[in-house]
Amino acid sequence: MIGCAILGYGTVGSGVYNVIRSNCGLVNERAGDDIEVRRVLDLREFPGDPVESILTHDFEDIVNDPEVRIVVEVMGGLKPAFDFTKRCLEAGKNVCTSNKELVAEHGLELMRIARQNDVNYFFEASCGGGIPIIRALNDCLTADCVDEITGILNGTTNYILTQMTDEGADFDDVLKQAQEMGFAERDPSADIDAFDPARKIAILASIAFGSSVDYRDVYTEGIRDISAEDIQYAATLGYAVKLLASAVKSDDGVRAWVAPMLISPDHPLYSINGVMNAVYVHGNMLGDAVFTGAGAGSLPTASAVVADVIDAARHGGKRAYCGWKKDEKLTLASNEDIKRKFLVRIKTEDVGNATSVFAPEGFLDTITIGDLDDEVAFITPDLSEKDFEERANTFGKIVSRIRIG
Amino acid sequence: MIGCAILGYGTVGSGVYNVIRSNCGLVNERAGDDIEVRRVLDLREFPGDPVESILTHDFEDIVNDPEVRIVVEVMGGLKPAFDFTKRCLEAGKNVCTSNKELVAEHGLELMRIARQNDVNYFFEASCGGGIPIIRALNDCLTADCVDEITGILNGTTNYILTQMTDEGADFDDVLKQAQEMGFAERDPSADIDAFDPARKIAILASIAFGSSVDYRDVYTEGIRDISAEDIQYAATLGYAVKLLASAVKSDDGVRAWVAPMLISPDHPLYSINGVMNAVYVHGNMLGDAVFTGAGAGSLPTASAVVADVIDAARHGGKRAYCGWKKDEKLTLASNEDIKRKFLVRIKTEDVGNATSVFAPEGFLDTITIGDLDDEVAFITPDLSEKDFEERANTFGKIVSRIRIG
Repeated sequence: MIGCAILGYGTVGSGVYNVIRSNCGLVNERAGDDIEVRRVLDLREFPGDPVESILTHDFEDIVNDPEVRIVVEVMGGLKPAFDFTKRCLEAGKNVCTSNKELVAEHGLELMRIARQNDVNYFFEASCGGGIPIIRALNDCLTADCVDEITGILNGTTNYILTQMTDEGADFDDVLKQAQEMGFAERDPSADIDAFDPARKIAILASIAFGSSVDYRDVYTEGIRDISAEDIQYAATLGYAVKLLASAVKSDDGVRAWVAPMLISPDHPLYSINGVMNAVYVHGNMLGDAVFTGAGAGSLPTASAVVADVIDAARHGGKRAYCGWKKDEKLTLASNEDIKRKFLVRIKTEDVGNATSVFAPEGFLDTITIGDLDDEVAFITPDLSEKDFEERANTFGKIVSRIRIG
Repeated sequence: MIGCAILGYGTVGSGVYNVIRSNCGLVNERAGDDIEVRRVLDLREFPGDPVESILTHDFEDIVNDPEVRIVVEVMGGLKPAFDFTKRCLEAGKNVCTSNKELVAEHGLELMRIARQNDVNYFFEASCGGGIPIIRALNDCLTADCVDEITGILNGTTNYILTQMTDEGADFDDVLKQAQEMGFAERDPSADIDAFDPARKIAILASIAFGSSVDYRDVYTEGIRDISAEDIQYAATLGYAVKLLASAVKSDDGVRAWVAPMLISPDHPLYSINGVMNAVYVHGNMLGDAVFTGAGAGSLPTASAVVADVIDAARHGGKRAYCGWKKDEKLTLASNEDIKRKFLVRIKTEDVGNATSVFAPEGFLDTITIGDLDDEVAFITPDLSEKDFEERANTFGKIVSRIRIG
């Protein structure tokens, strides 16, 4: 029997309890031993709930229980999750988590503590919910030098963009609706301002490239400014608008960014809609691979956490491989030389000025859409970020601009 | 140092040698030890090739070399691959293979021999080329009861169907072109008559459901009879034609089949084109997941084989988990109760007769396409396989029929 404890009985925590209980036969068979949830930590009471008898409000009950060998940390946030995780690892307990804030901030340090104590710190559910992308990088695509990871790594924003596209609705209306349906938090900033996918791409890049990527170094632009009109232009041109998180290895180093992008139907992430997430990976031998699945939700996320629990049980005292291991921090290369096209919206009266700034050959191929008769849009030639920025500043009157991926 | 030998220096074998050589730094780092290719077995000579000095024509040189701890079997076929694999395992060597014929025929037996000798028999590259689908089932989606696997598991047929769709070309012309480009074998039967994907879905089903599925029990229909006109009808109705291989768990047991199917744009495999493969998996906790990648080709397949080599090195003498373990054979449930719609083409003169057989409510909603003025097509209501078969026999004059997935 392998004793297990769950820190936090919220959406993911109750999902973890459910997965272990509902699939107990196969979970035990695959773990090679019986997994028993001995304790659940939460400040709240859950009268009548199946965990009532094993509920505790005191973390010491868990960290001091020698029978607890695997701890599931699904509290979220840094405090007290960081201290609790550290103490569990130091007490020789494996820890499995879905806590991307904590992994992005202290992942390497916690893995080091785990190593010193002959246990594992697993965090499959921290990126892409139920998609087994971390195990894919660490244990599956091991023969490859990965040179690009590009993902739709946030279900809330993908849901919002999909709804805006399908219904022609405004950002604010769809956000409100998503909040009412529980697909968006009451404070939606981590999602819509894209800190959440920035943390996730930082974690994935750290694994793929070996050294810690600080998510604060990742250029991050959310979807707050994407309007129904932007999406109408995109659709007219055959593009979808997606919030992409990328880390790409080039001769100059690793570049990373999170931003809404226009992508065409031949892009591998074009048809990823609603709350689905997907991660495109390019390996130097494998070529293109895409991993798609539910990026959030109680049971899909719990499925990934429990897969970690099973892996921790299988490993016993043996440490699992993780590509994220080098002590030095990875200094990201500048994005300013990345060349792309941009979709730019301007007022009709500014076409002359825009032509001189953006179309040196003297012709601006503009499009208009139905109900917006005082403006036009155009696609720039390939411009570096820096070059675009300079021209945009010279021009000064852009209504909106979106990168084309 | 971990000595390695490669049996067969063809497309995949030379790819394996290239991957190990090109990515040696990261392969060694991830394997935890240096991987050295000591021997390559092939009947041919390769003068001037980098393997010239380690080439042997004698299998005994490999099986008797105590330094060879991992053998890559990429010869294909049953003879002599089966004997060679058995003897390597019995000599305490791990074996990694891309040989789906051998795995489909003797996989369980070879895993048993591996177990008895404290080594592993790995076959990630046998299904889906570079897609890590076997490791996903065994090591990633471990918290889930998988109840459906549906894949595009053959690159040749997917390439042919994609070309037929894009160019409106006939099957025979595209096949000839694919053969000239090296995308199809000179004897294309295993691909176009779908024995290859039948073997692959049998392997995946054996892993997901625990007991050996005999590929000969899987209902198998190839793409030989798919015509340019079938594809035109499909496109007119908004469908793509894909050769799908499925294994589905139901209350009656596991059902499995391989057949060309019409799928709509909301199907997770709709946009998998050309030589790409993809596998849709449904887990009872995870929900939908899709794994996409290059299904064939020297380097993508070799990437999966080398990932196995790394895993074999990591495991040392420890056995890896594989879900395919039960001794009894899995008796598949009958497909005759599966209900689906069918696209049926008939001669225009037979509409009256078809109406009485297929449209008991008295109205057959037919469509016609441009240049085929002597025929029509219609979509049946949901009919069981058995019911459809009976009606088709009663009617007797169907031009062609394709299942709608």
